Amino acid sequence: MTTAQQIVLASRPNGAPKPENFRLESFDLPQADEGEVTIRVLYLSLDPYMRGRMSDAKSYAAPVPIDGVMEGETICEVLKSRHNDFSPGDIVRGRTGWRTMAVLKGDGLRHVETHGAPLTTAVGALGMPGFTAWSGLKFIGQPKEGETVAVAAASGPVGSMVGQLAKLWGARAVGIAGGADKCAYVKDELGFDAVIDHRADDFASRLASACPDGIDVYFENVGGHVWDAVLPLLNKYGRVPVCGLVAHYNGSSTSETDRLPATMSAILRQSLLVRGFIQTEFAPDHFDEFLSDIGPRVASGEIKYREDIVEGFENAPAAFTSMLTGGNFGKLIVKVS
Amino acid sequence: MTTAQQIVLASRPNGAPKPENFRLESFDLPQADEGEVTIRVLYLSLDPYMRGRMSDAKSYAAPVPIDGVMEGETICEVLKSRHNDFSPGDIVRGRTGWRTMAVLKGDGLRHVETHGAPLTTAVGALGMPGFTAWSGLKFIGQPKEGETVAVAAASGPVGSMVGQLAKLWGARAVGIAGGADKCAYVKDELGFDAVIDHRADDFASRLASACPDGIDVYFENVGGHVWDAVLPLLNKYGRVPVCGLVAHYNGSSTSETDRLPATMSAILRQSLLVRGFIQTEFAPDHFDEFLSDIGPRVASGEIKYREDIVEGFENAPAAFTSMLTGGNFGKLIVKVS
Repeated sequence: MTTAQQIVLASRPNGAPKPENFRLESFDLPQADEGEVTIRVLYLSLDPYMRGRMSDAKSYAAPVPIDGVMEGETICEVLKSRHNDFSPGDIVRGRTGWRTMAVLKGDGLRHVETHGAPLTTAVGALGMPGFTAWSGLKFIGQPKEGETVAVAAASGPVGSMVGQLAKLWGARAVGIAGGADKCAYVKDELGFDAVIDHRADDFASRLASACPDGIDVYFENVGGHVWDAVLPLLNKYGRVPVCGLVAHYNGSSTSETDRLPATMSAILRQSLLVRGFIQTEFAPDHFDEFLSDIGPRVASGEIKYREDIVEGFENAPAAFTSMLTGGNFGKLIVKVS
Repeated sequence: MTTAQQIVLASRPNGAPKPENFRLESFDLPQADEGEVTIRVLYLSLDPYMRGRMSDAKSYAAPVPIDGVMEGETICEVLKSRHNDFSPGDIVRGRTGWRTMAVLKGDGLRHVETHGAPLTTAVGALGMPGFTAWSGLKFIGQPKEGETVAVAAASGPVGSMVGQLAKLWGARAVGIAGGADKCAYVKDELGFDAVIDHRADDFASRLASACPDGIDVYFENVGGHVWDAVLPLLNKYGRVPVCGLVAHYNGSSTSETDRLPATMSAILRQSLLVRGFIQTEFAPDHFDEFLSDIGPRVASGEIKYREDIVEGFENAPAAFTSMLTGGNFGKLIVKVS
């Protein structure tokens, strides 16, 4: 019998999650049935959406039960296969959850294709975050040449792709990030036209100055006070794809006034489009198109990305909780083995 | 020299407008220049959007200046014409503002076409309110057969058309209205599948019961507490055309909590589309299509409408201020002469 490790949800967080909300356990790996594959996890992707799974508040997906294994996507090596599509040594993506090994149905796995870019991009620039940026911008944001696209968490895996795609498609990219290092990266490395530090006291007026023609597309992945600064800048027929609200995940607003009327009034006044989405809406029909469009650009370095790779499976909880307050810099990935 | 009457904005309202915010005046009608038409106003349309024009808060249109004539659309008879397209006796729609007579450029006028329905429908069921309903539902709401469409102010000119179109296009129509009389009209006369009185203490739970399969399209024309009850009922991929927020027009929310996070979370969780619009976005390309589609149905009685016609130009301010709190029943129109 093979023993592996997993991380389960020990308790639901009250506000910001702490490492104590998780528990590291050993478990006995079952034997693979016909159609199943035994895999060893190489990399675990840590993503903001996982915060939602820790809570039993209404969400777009069911919560992880207490004592249940945390959900997550991983890059794995096939050890043994009882499925025709996979052989030992194959590299696959799968939803193993936070585990070091797993036995999964082969039908839920996908061979990793990165067009020559490093394996880890399969959960970053060429995975769910990159595809979230590409599909949300392409199908909802629809930037036209010369328009202004703004995005927060601009040094992160979604935001960095949004801005680079905006530039690629002929628009102006304005990034919002937290701290001088991230801002410098967004401007100097990623080539955004402007970047604003959301921690600055005069953040709202700086953002306005950086968007002299207003904002045509705001790619919403954080919520919170960034939204308040963006709202008055949105142009007529502005589009707002909403893929995440990380500023809200740890609890409700600290505002003592009702901010809804201002938002609804702006939506009416400016004929805005606000559209929530999860990338799974577009993936079945468009993921392959994304990969063949963006894969070679990532492999060649035309599109840049940054990863924050943490060593050691046992460090996943601390890395995850830090990420929720901006403690990482780049796509957060745990190197498991 | 001919003398006519006009109503100007005497002062900006602080909260709910009062008749004292208006002033009735006489003015000397100018002579028509080449290309202009002298017209006599038969009917003045009173509409909620006019509340926005009284305020100097940011809006989608410039405010009426103090001492300026209130804006508005009217149905008029041509008295004298110096424009080739118009002859004395023609019935036209025009933006004269709140006036009994006017001299306007002929290029801004439009012959009234009602397919045999009464003239007044040109500012109601077959005018701006009807077209708002038709275009918002057709291009944004896009109800599919069997889906549930909910609309507030369901006895009003926009809401009544939204529900009837929803039925015509194969969806289920749930109306929200204020008071037993309006509710009975919506259910019994307009043929909505269900109607809920928003003044009921258990309004939210009644609305939920009336929408056992949730809400696929919520046509937003009021805002306020109706939105709070609708929000948890919206289905995945729900659509929310936003054409008005009459509950907000007289001042900001009375909520002491921030309602924005719940709205943004629902948008994300349910992949909602929220889209503000003004009917002028669609009118140039689609008004004729609307008129030929809906005109004959209104004329034949297949699509029903109700008008609240107030006699006497001088009564416009009181009728308008009452409408903003639901005091009218049907499309509010002032019979001027």
